[in-house]
Amino acid sequence: MRILFHAVDANPAPWLADLQAALPQAQLRVWEAGDDAPADYAVVWKPPAEMLRDRVGLKGVFNLGAGVDAILQLGDALPAGVPIVRLDDAGMGVQMAEYVTWAVLRYFRRFDQFDAQQKSGQWRFAKPHDKRSFSIGILGLGVLGQRIAAALSPFGFPLLGWSRTPKDLPGVACHAGSAGLDAFLAASRVVVCVLPLTGETTGILNRDTLSKLPHGSYLINVARGMHLVEADLTALLQSGQIAGATLDVFRQEPLPAGHPFWQEPRITITPHIAAVTLRGDSVRQIAAKIGRMEAGHDVPGLVDRTRGY
Amino acid sequence: MRILFHAVDANPAPWLADLQAALPQAQLRVWEAGDDAPADYAVVWKPPAEMLRDRVGLKGVFNLGAGVDAILQLGDALPAGVPIVRLDDAGMGVQMAEYVTWAVLRYFRRFDQFDAQQKSGQWRFAKPHDKRSFSIGILGLGVLGQRIAAALSPFGFPLLGWSRTPKDLPGVACHAGSAGLDAFLAASRVVVCVLPLTGETTGILNRDTLSKLPHGSYLINVARGMHLVEADLTALLQSGQIAGATLDVFRQEPLPAGHPFWQEPRITITPHIAAVTLRGDSVRQIAAKIGRMEAGHDVPGLVDRTRGY
Repeated sequence: MRILFHAVDANPAPWLADLQAALPQAQLRVWEAGDDAPADYAVVWKPPAEMLRDRVGLKGVFNLGAGVDAILQLGDALPAGVPIVRLDDAGMGVQMAEYVTWAVLRYFRRFDQFDAQQKSGQWRFAKPHDKRSFSIGILGLGVLGQRIAAALSPFGFPLLGWSRTPKDLPGVACHAGSAGLDAFLAASRVVVCVLPLTGETTGILNRDTLSKLPHGSYLINVARGMHLVEADLTALLQSGQIAGATLDVFRQEPLPAGHPFWQEPRITITPHIAAVTLRGDSVRQIAAKIGRMEAGHDVPGLVDRTRGY
Repeated sequence: MRILFHAVDANPAPWLADLQAALPQAQLRVWEAGDDAPADYAVVWKPPAEMLRDRVGLKGVFNLGAGVDAILQLGDALPAGVPIVRLDDAGMGVQMAEYVTWAVLRYFRRFDQFDAQQKSGQWRFAKPHDKRSFSIGILGLGVLGQRIAAALSPFGFPLLGWSRTPKDLPGVACHAGSAGLDAFLAASRVVVCVLPLTGETTGILNRDTLSKLPHGSYLINVARGMHLVEADLTALLQSGQIAGATLDVFRQEPLPAGHPFWQEPRITITPHIAAVTLRGDSVRQIAAKIGRMEAGHDVPGLVDRTRGY
């Protein structure tokens, strides 16, 4: 079995070593420009089109992340019919839950306000928000969204969710489809975005949708920068419609010097760290899925190219 | 039944109204200097000695908080044999859990560092700590400490606890007594203090004990300012032994202008807000306990004056 590896921004050596240990029978190689020798599987993060175009005999492409937008952008360069498999969780669920729980608690308990007070030497009491109306609306109810809901549930926040197709989750008021979006927005004091990036979800966080939230709401985006119309957010923060935003992802990354977000105190910026791909968990998952595919079984995490995730 | 009320810093009117609604047969009054007319119960927060001294016929004193250090300081002014009852939880457990979970996640995921980077316009990746060695040690395993352990447990942090007398909690490595303190400290990367303030626990967070933590540890104090020797913490932060501290309580509150903590970026200051007494929950609890006492039953939360909590 031949496995081709290419991951932007990653040192390939430890990945190859771990994959080799998990799949002793495999022949592993790092893809380099011009390599069109046969391969059974590709393990990739943001691969160039040339790596996959016209590649015959490929049995599967494993994406080293939950979001497959970068790979689907290759379009016709992706060999037709080859299964694309995303990571289901691989340690990302708990990381997302940590990030979102921290951000929600920070706003709910006004730790952002206490931080500003500390910097000016002020000791001033402030009540938490009213928890009954501090509802958390999760955009995207896949593995990550469900893990976030489970983490927030013990704290007693009212929970809502929205997904493309109807879901039924205990303790979460579930809305679905474009018909269900307005009701979801009207009832969400905090919106958490963990949607996949598709044609339908690009720009879903915009002046129109964010204006339907209750006045003084909060936004947490841990999905993709392209979900948010950035100039719209700046305007809504200035009007007070949005009270604060915690953003891990941006249209351009690294966020360029001079971008207005750097100067907006109501925006909290993190450098795309909400959930990093963990090598150990990912390798175990890929090895197990290759084993299932070789044995002719289905694997979870198969991407629907038309749906976009 | 006559109930005497006195609570520093609280507006008595809504308390009296809620107590009256919960105990329709009671005669309620706010204590004023010179009032030594009979009373069956006292509901108090930081009462003056004159309110309780030589008071005959009192059947119980209800403390509007979990910590009873302020009332026990009255010493001989407390009528002998009168039960002193603290609030068991009354909404404080979940608030403590929110505060500590926020503070732990903030350090674990390095959000303090990202905040500093944002202020200087830097986009720089930083890994979380290694979770297997990011152990959380909880000093005090009563209602509040147990609630904190339960909130942290789903995130997978190794949990330790220390209490005066041995306890056995699932998923928490429990240590007890002075003999167990060193082993607890040596294994705790984050120390969370929720101890009651007694003669034995005053100053328990000092140069000697905090030096036994792993290098680069974190301190979260949501109990009482007197647990911490403040000058020792400043020195340990400067040496790097302690990497950061989140403090909700101080020896003098409000924290005075000019106190060195205001100028120490590795200290996060909140104005004693970790858990506020919630009127609705507290009134329900006090009314239920008075009902039990009138019927001759035991009540939970009875204070042992010798033990100090």
